[in-house]
Amino acid sequence: MKYNFYAGPAILPKEAIDNSIEAIKNFAGTGLSLLEISHRSKEFDAAMLDAQATVKRLLNVPDGYEVLFLGGGASTQFLMVAYNFLEKKAAYLDTGAWASKAIKEAKLFGEVAVVASSKDKNYSYIPKGFSIPDDADYLHITTNNTIYGTEILEDFDVNIPLIADMSSDFMSRPVDVSKYDMIYAGAQKNVGPAGTSVIIIKKDALGKVSRTLPTMMNYQTHIDKGSMFNTPPVYAVYTVLQTLKWLEKQGGVEGIEKVNIEKADLLYGEIERNKLFVPTVEPGSRSRMNVCFVMNENYKDLDKEFLDFATSKDIMGIKGHRSVGGFRASIYNALPKSSIEYLIGVMQEFEKKH
Amino acid sequence: MKYNFYAGPAILPKEAIDNSIEAIKNFAGTGLSLLEISHRSKEFDAAMLDAQATVKRLLNVPDGYEVLFLGGGASTQFLMVAYNFLEKKAAYLDTGAWASKAIKEAKLFGEVAVVASSKDKNYSYIPKGFSIPDDADYLHITTNNTIYGTEILEDFDVNIPLIADMSSDFMSRPVDVSKYDMIYAGAQKNVGPAGTSVIIIKKDALGKVSRTLPTMMNYQTHIDKGSMFNTPPVYAVYTVLQTLKWLEKQGGVEGIEKVNIEKADLLYGEIERNKLFVPTVEPGSRSRMNVCFVMNENYKDLDKEFLDFATSKDIMGIKGHRSVGGFRASIYNALPKSSIEYLIGVMQEFEKKH
Repeated sequence: MKYNFYAGPAILPKEAIDNSIEAIKNFAGTGLSLLEISHRSKEFDAAMLDAQATVKRLLNVPDGYEVLFLGGGASTQFLMVAYNFLEKKAAYLDTGAWASKAIKEAKLFGEVAVVASSKDKNYSYIPKGFSIPDDADYLHITTNNTIYGTEILEDFDVNIPLIADMSSDFMSRPVDVSKYDMIYAGAQKNVGPAGTSVIIIKKDALGKVSRTLPTMMNYQTHIDKGSMFNTPPVYAVYTVLQTLKWLEKQGGVEGIEKVNIEKADLLYGEIERNKLFVPTVEPGSRSRMNVCFVMNENYKDLDKEFLDFATSKDIMGIKGHRSVGGFRASIYNALPKSSIEYLIGVMQEFEKKH
Repeated sequence: MKYNFYAGPAILPKEAIDNSIEAIKNFAGTGLSLLEISHRSKEFDAAMLDAQATVKRLLNVPDGYEVLFLGGGASTQFLMVAYNFLEKKAAYLDTGAWASKAIKEAKLFGEVAVVASSKDKNYSYIPKGFSIPDDADYLHITTNNTIYGTEILEDFDVNIPLIADMSSDFMSRPVDVSKYDMIYAGAQKNVGPAGTSVIIIKKDALGKVSRTLPTMMNYQTHIDKGSMFNTPPVYAVYTVLQTLKWLEKQGGVEGIEKVNIEKADLLYGEIERNKLFVPTVEPGSRSRMNVCFVMNENYKDLDKEFLDFATSKDIMGIKGHRSVGGFRASIYNALPKSSIEYLIGVMQEFEKKH
């Protein structure tokens, strides 16, 4: 058995994977594979509607919002957000590499006010107490920063529309959707395989920019056609649905949040306790999804040895991103608490050796 | 057993589907699922390189071209083509609904000269003998028109750059890639499941427009990063690779073209012979991929009866598109000749009843 701590694409529930295989063999009793059936068939249409409804149910999405499944990844959303919402000026919170990429795209469409940045300390904290320009069309935030291991755990109260990239903590906790005009997430962390993004969008928020939008870049196109304007990424959408159905059985986002808190507390606790390691992120900004840590000052040269030791114990994907170094354990929804306990055991065994 | 004549997503080789299931269970001996492994892992990196190399091998792609796998569907390519290549004026051949959609996007970026259109006869033929403006940045064609069942079977010789949407006949015959600046195709017809597009692009052709391109819309972004600028649609790319490996075993595009000609000849032959049916497309413009036919004048009222009869015989997906009516049998690479023979048998049985 392998212990999968990859940052994304990442661990998924076995049940979701197994159900997707069954559908590849024989989809919804049609005698055809999920890969070979028209997206206009009544069977896939039902799956798409079910996926949208399940997102709404899990996050208690209020009336007036639509759920979309689009290809092209969250990086395409950086562009679409600006295309659809940025008329004159937008506000962005700079909490890391992905936030910076979103900022870069927005600058092609208008003025960008960066309200705060944690770049000064290699993005190891979430900025607080910044002010937001009243005349901005929206504030864009990245709620979880996969590379640096920081997370915004509350829903901001702001006086302008709020748009959040939740790619790496989507569905890991309850969210008050009514506080957002739009939430988006690449599926390949908490809710499915690579290949689709999930978008929750307030319908009233659209139609306020004066530019002409290319068809595929226009959220209204996809709302009007229920995410079926063109052929959607069928398999990815279906597997997201299976992942969300598993999540419902775990007590939904309320249930999984409890487990996620337990898991994160356990692992950060061990990192703080173990003489060999230190966390890279300030308390109060630490992510429950991506736990970053490095070797303690006196043990700097053990970096590679620990990585090799962990690998020899079937731990996969804990090498830190090159921007931070050290280690990163990604502990998304589908990672069981027992895997955290196993990793802690390996960390303690390594500590005893030194 | 079902006989799958869907227009897309469509029938795939069983071997490709089975291999993709094996990879979902345990990818490349990693002990992890293809769905759960980092796209930066050396195992997936190898699969991506293999997929690119296999496309190049199959179509004998000359030096100076790159192969890309991008999400968002061919509809996103309508936009990206214009973004990347249209400086002042572009020429488009209007052979159907998808060509018209490509034209609509291009008009957002510059002048569009429609060099010819077959709209006058409900797109039932491929226009010939049209002239192409010398000062256009490129000519865009749609080589196969899924809805109407027409196909351009030769590689045009033109004096300006040629760009082709080959979504529904990609890899069904040899193509002289050197005659094109770009070829693109949604995978979900001949080469894989929905979720990725395959793009073959001449590197020298880029960088000639003066506008600033959004990162994800810029082909250069994806060339520079080998289709891994952001997380690619991992499962779809891998399954395309399996489909292409199957194609190589069929003798590549040269081998499959022979079978495709046989299959199309058989079916059109029966439609011509059978007193109940007539083809909708003129000889010389008929697609080898999508065979459209309707009830003969005297048997118009048998439309629904034939559809029900075929369905009762486990034939799936032959209802014609609403723009044409009647029937459409999509007979892509993976559809065996025996399925054509079976369909013909059903048509003859129906003929005997009337």
